[in-house]
Amino acid sequence: MSESNSVLIGKKPVMNYVLACITLFHGGAKEVNIKARGRAISRAVDVVEVVRRRFLPDVKIKKVGIGTETVPPREEGGTPTNVSTIEITLER
Amino acid sequence: MSESNSVLIGKKPVMNYVLACITLFHGGAKEVNIKARGRAISRAVDVVEVVRRRFLPDVKIKKVGIGTETVPPREEGGTPTNVSTIEITLER
Repeated sequence: MSESNSVLIGKKPVMNYVLACITLFHGGAKEVNIKARGRAISRAVDVVEVVRRRFLPDVKIKKVGIGTETVPPREEGGTPTNVSTIEITLER
Repeated sequence: MSESNSVLIGKKPVMNYVLACITLFHGGAKEVNIKARGRAISRAVDVVEVVRRRFLPDVKIKKVGIGTETVPPREEGGTPTNVSTIEITLER
């Protein structure tokens, strides 16, 4: 799957990401990958649920993967921290 | 699966829920169900990752389900709101 079909969830309102997903599907994407880290994970689930229940009921959840990423320290000498990740694949 | 093998994630520190999961597995559970709603969803993913990576590497993620629950209005005359949910099944 091409990386252009990914939506990375950040701190913007849920509807911004919902619109991004809908635009990808309307552009002919068969799969859209929704990725988030840390506290944005719950927003990623919100995005998926709004897309499926309000806008595109024919879209199914193909896969949900969870994992951990190591984030390098912000300052020199700091310790790296772990952050949880989620990746939800939607298919039409 | 009996409901006693469920851990409902709330607002306590991640380690409290990690300990609850480990206790269930040590008590002989083959499966443990981790459930969360709303903003606690990202904490649920943290719990799963800490259990698997730090304490019980033989535990696998069997299933991840996401959904929506409708919460009744807090006051009379209010409107019900939707909240996203996640349910992660771990198996040993």
